[in-house]
Parts: sequence; structure tokens; C-alpha cells
Amino acid sequence: MVDTSERLDAVFRALADPTRRAMLRELAAGPRTVGELAAPFDISLAGASKHIQTLERAGLIQRKVQGRVHTCRLDARPLHAGAEWIRHYERFWNRKLDVLDALLKAEDLGTSAAKSTRKPGSPRRKA
Amino acid sequence: MVDTSERLDAVFRALADPTRRAMLRELAAGPRTVGELAAPFDISLAGASKHIQTLERAGLIQRKVQGRVHTCRLDARPLHAGAEWIRHYERFWNRKLDVLDALLKAEDLGTSAAKSTRKPGSPRRKA
Repeated sequence: MVDTSERLDAVFRALADPTRRAMLRELAAGPRTVGELAAPFDISLAGASKHIQTLERAGLIQRKVQGRVHTCRLDARPLHAGAEWIRHYERFWNRKLDVLDALLKAEDLGTSAAKSTRKPGSPRRKA
Repeated sequence: MVDTSERLDAVFRALADPTRRAMLRELAAGPRTVGELAAPFDISLAGASKHIQTLERAGLIQRKVQGRVHTCRLDARPLHAGAEWIRHYERFWNRKLDVLDALLKAEDLGTSAAKSTRKPGSPRRKA
């Protein structure tokens, strides 16, 4: 549970930055060197490295070192935990809407039943 | 686009902490005062307030002030943007797996076709 919670912290923290999200999009197209990942952004290599380390800590990047070339590869699996957390939440939220929907339908049915058993000329139930 | 990106930053940042995630779970059951939200955690009211402000900035909490009582209510809508971001990503990832799957199937078909048209005794195609 602690592990999952810490993993979620790291994944959501990694996603909470536009540069890191853009790096993940870039890596979705294929492996990139650290230099290639840094190139589109107006940041230093050191700055890019910090972002890459944050992505690594979340398990979203695997780095392969060959001599002086560091190649980063995407590992999207940790995203599932984040998606599941939000999905569970949405389900809960939707369930509340479902309950409301069911209550409204039950109310409708009750009103129809009252109407159909109402004697002609008897007073209408208030809506 | 900037707005969406900033909203995503705020939502993912809000989710990147176990106390804030627990507060959201609590609020999913119904509105809570700031005191009620802080109670289960070993943190000061000031600490709880900071977390609540982070959730407010992400649009996940709406606060109603009546005299000295601040009541927080969940607004789950901003979570959809976060879910969509991850979902889009998963789709992309799955598409890559689909392409790989299609390539492997095409390779299989190619091998079968080569086998069926191969004259008896002719050399096998390398796998």
C-alpha cells in the first residue's frame, strides 16, 4: 500500500509539468538520447537532466548507457496505476449520479402509479 | 492550450500527495468542513489548509463560507482532463503494440505463404 502510494506520488509528480509531459509524448514515438530530449526546449542540459531524473524515479523512463551516449526509452506501465486511481474515482462519482438517476426514476414511477390508481375527480398529488 | 496545460499541471500536482488523495476520497462521500478534513491526519490545521488550497487551485474543491465554518465540496470534473491525458497516452501505447502484433501476423502469413508455394526440396526461407 505504501509502495503503491509512493509510486502514485512519483507518477503524478512526473506528469505535473508540461516539459515532462512533452518528453513522454516524444518518447512515445521511439527512444531518444538525452540531447535529443532536451533539444526542443529552451532549457539547459542540466535542467533537462533533472526532468529526466524525475521521470526515471516514476519508472516512466528506462535509461541505457553506451559509452557517453545515454538513451532513454519509455516505459508506460506506471501510468496504469495513475489511470486506475482516477478511474476508480470517476466510477465513484458516476455511481453517485446513478443513485440520483435511480431516485428520479423511482420518483417518476411513484407519480405514474399514483396517477393510474387515482379515482376520477380525486385531487392530484402535488408534484 | 496554455490553459489546459496549466490545469493539467495543477490537477496532477494536487494528486501527487497521499494526504490530498485521501481528502478527495473523503469528499467523495459528501461535503466536509476544513476541520473534518484535517481530523484524520497528523497535521496542523495550517498544514491541512495548504493541502486544501492546492486542491482548490486545481478546481477539485469548492469552498463555501458560512460565518466561521468553511465547507468543502468535491468537484471531480477537472479529473477528466487528467484521465483523458493518460488515456490518450495508453491508446498511443496500445496502437504501437497493435502495429507490432500486425507485423508479427503479417510475418506469419508470409512464412505460411512461402511454405505453401515452396517446391519440395527447395531451400527454406530463413526465419
